[in-house]
Amino acid sequence: MKIITLLTDFGTRDYFVGAMKGVILSINPNVNIIDISHEIEPQRIRSGAFVLENSYSYFPKGTIHVAVIDPGVGSQRRAILVQTEDYFFIAPDNGILSFILTKSKNPKVFSLEDENYFLKNPSSTFHGRDIFAPVAAHLSKGVSPSSFGKFINDPVIIESYAPQFISYGRFIGRVIHIDRFGNLITNFKAENLPKRFVLRIGDFTIDKHLKFYSQAQTDEPFSIVGSAGLLEISVFKGSAKQILGASIDQAVELQTIE
Amino acid sequence: MKIITLLTDFGTRDYFVGAMKGVILSINPNVNIIDISHEIEPQRIRSGAFVLENSYSYFPKGTIHVAVIDPGVGSQRRAILVQTEDYFFIAPDNGILSFILTKSKNPKVFSLEDENYFLKNPSSTFHGRDIFAPVAAHLSKGVSPSSFGKFINDPVIIESYAPQFISYGRFIGRVIHIDRFGNLITNFKAENLPKRFVLRIGDFTIDKHLKFYSQAQTDEPFSIVGSAGLLEISVFKGSAKQILGASIDQAVELQTIE
Amino acid sequence: MKIITLLTDFGTRDYFVGAMKGVILSINPNVNIIDISHEIEPQRIRSGAFVLENSYSYFPKGTIHVAVIDPGVGSQRRAILVQTEDYFFIAPDNGILSFILTKSKNPKVFSLEDENYFLKNPSSTFHGRDIFAPVAAHLSKGVSPSSFGKFINDPVIIESYAPQFISYGRFIGRVIHIDRFGNLITNFKAENLPKRFVLRIGDFTIDKHLKFYSQAQTDEPFSIVGSAGLLEISVFKGSAKQILGASIDQAVELQTIE
Repeated sequence: MKIITLLTDFGTRDYFVGAMKGVILSINPNVNIIDISHEIEPQRIRSGAFVLENSYSYFPKGTIHVAVIDPGVGSQRRAILVQTEDYFFIAPDNGILSFILTKSKNPKVFSLEDENYFLKNPSSTFHGRDIFAPVAAHLSKGVSPSSFGKFINDPVIIESYAPQFISYGRFIGRVIHIDRFGNLITNFKAENLPKRFVLRIGDFTIDKHLKFYSQAQTDEPFSIVGSAGLLEISVFKGSAKQILGASIDQAVELQTIE
Repeated sequence: MKIITLLTDFGTRDYFVGAMKGVILSINPNVNIIDISHEIEPQRIRSGAFVLENSYSYFPKGTIHVAVIDPGVGSQRRAILVQTEDYFFIAPDNGILSFILTKSKNPKVFSLEDENYFLKNPSSTFHGRDIFAPVAAHLSKGVSPSSFGKFINDPVIIESYAPQFISYGRFIGRVIHIDRFGNLITNFKAENLPKRFVLRIGDFTIDKHLKFYSQAQTDEPFSIVGSAGLLEISVFKGSAKQILGASIDQAVELQTIE
Repeated sequence: MKIITLLTDFGTRDYFVGAMKGVILSINPNVNIIDISHEIEPQRIRSGAFVLENSYSYFPKGTIHVAVIDPGVGSQRRAILVQTEDYFFIAPDNGILSFILTKSKNPKVFSLEDENYFLKNPSSTFHGRDIFAPVAAHLSKGVSPSSFGKFINDPVIIESYAPQFISYGRFIGRVIHIDRFGNLITNFKAENLPKRFVLRIGDFTIDKHLKFYSQAQTDEPFSIVGSAGLLEISVFKGSAKQILGASIDQAVELQTIE
């Protein structure tokens, strides 16, 4: 059974997700629909991209990933289908697939244009139901990617965050995501970390670096390499977000100790 | 594989939804359970009806829709099964299926009475698990609707909201739903809108009417026909609910401009 | 199709649940993954145990229940697989399966040790993805429980709450869970209740005991035997939690009336 995953900012209190699932199952009842998340903060493209980046590759080859964070719905922004060696991605062309497009070998990108694969009279406010869901369902039935529209070579790419070099041994990174536990995920990659370092965020200095959460015996903030391979700032049995008063995009300074 | 959808106000932090799914799968393991929503505001029958109304018809013919918003659980309120041309609906008889009953051709309504299709010793507080889930599962296995109880012709219907005529060209409608993005969905239908009009809600006057969200360049509130075919009041990249301080049932005045 | 259920405190706004589902489906695409809850309060083992206790037994025999509330992830805490007559359970060895271990006939407990069944290079912060999900998937494909590691006889058991006897006819219980509707679930079991009694919680005295919610005509708090077979304190169409200012673990006194 083909798998279609859904990643949206639609929440689960409205009819949005239910309608998408109904549309998919009406076109292909033999598909396994898997929710990745519907709780992306409304219209936060980068946040959706982060969640997709850290889940898509765990799925079986051939999985169709549908990602709808779509503040530009109804405007001239394109809708795209991306085919990589292992997966398909269907999304608005607003940068949410940047990492797929930059990290995959020879991704093929198609613009979604053939209205035969859309619901009739698509609305201008809900392409999740009217365009993305039916295209995913038709694709899962074996329609070839090039049937949906023409090949394009200029999909939108948003620049990825990388920590900035400030001076010898000093870098400024950022909080790129805050998870449910209040852990602050930074853009410092595990493989680039110096052996010894200290972090500064707001008024806090963090010089405790742990390997797993329960090593912490106190409620002092510490850093840890999390499951996304990035440096996180955490508090054991507490929320670093709350205790540090942190927010997304906040600066985090890393100072190497020699 | 038969589809059973679930729509409840049970939330997802308790055992309620898990127990319902377990009951269904124990009776019919070959059924595809699809969540429409479990985040309907507790005991808000109209809100559940709105979400169901805007999602049920996207599902394949033969889908069984289970809707449990049930403040009267345990009392003498009946439980019903409604069969329409294309779907089945299972719910408490409290008006949540009003639109199905009034809009479908010759819906057949059965009272759920045969305890052989319930869990043994049903509780008086959780019929979702003890009555609605097992009935849906038995129905999905081919038990005929009339086996569950007798045909009735007086199901509860709640009056639907329609805007009220006030004076020539003036109507009072209401906010009937607020979605996750803070959009205010009113009961003004797209097909009944005059060509030119102005809206008033609280202290706000809205004379900007757009076709899609990103046409808005500012944070000024505007109206738009949403994906439910109803007039919505929105703020681009913001929450109309917050900015207008709006709430469900609030009055919205529409004044025709000639 | 084998069923794997998931119960976690991971929430649904991160990549955690999506990654677990992807791992499971990559190992066994023919498995039906059912969410019990991902909204357990972070790191509250007892709360997760309560939700699991009230849902697991409704599932078909052979279901694999995965429960990951795991504050000790990465430390020396063991990971276990429990086999009972009817089900399998996979969880950290931190007491979340206490009721299964104490109530089942001859449960067999295995320590998860064979790294061939884990993802390669498991992280020290996310065993849900790296250990529990792949073990569940391999088990669903027919790998025998003893293949994952050695039999152990000392799993962690947390003492269960029972009301305390204070003096003749007086007992002190507690609020062990608060559900989405704000109902306070106590640890007084239905079968042990005296015929007549009065409850005290904070400044409130509750002497109204009902059979179903809508018997209440006012917003006065009342008690009721809920669907978990425990005494609950409720307010009709309101939140007992809010109105009584109650919290988890709060004392509830029961005084028998003769």
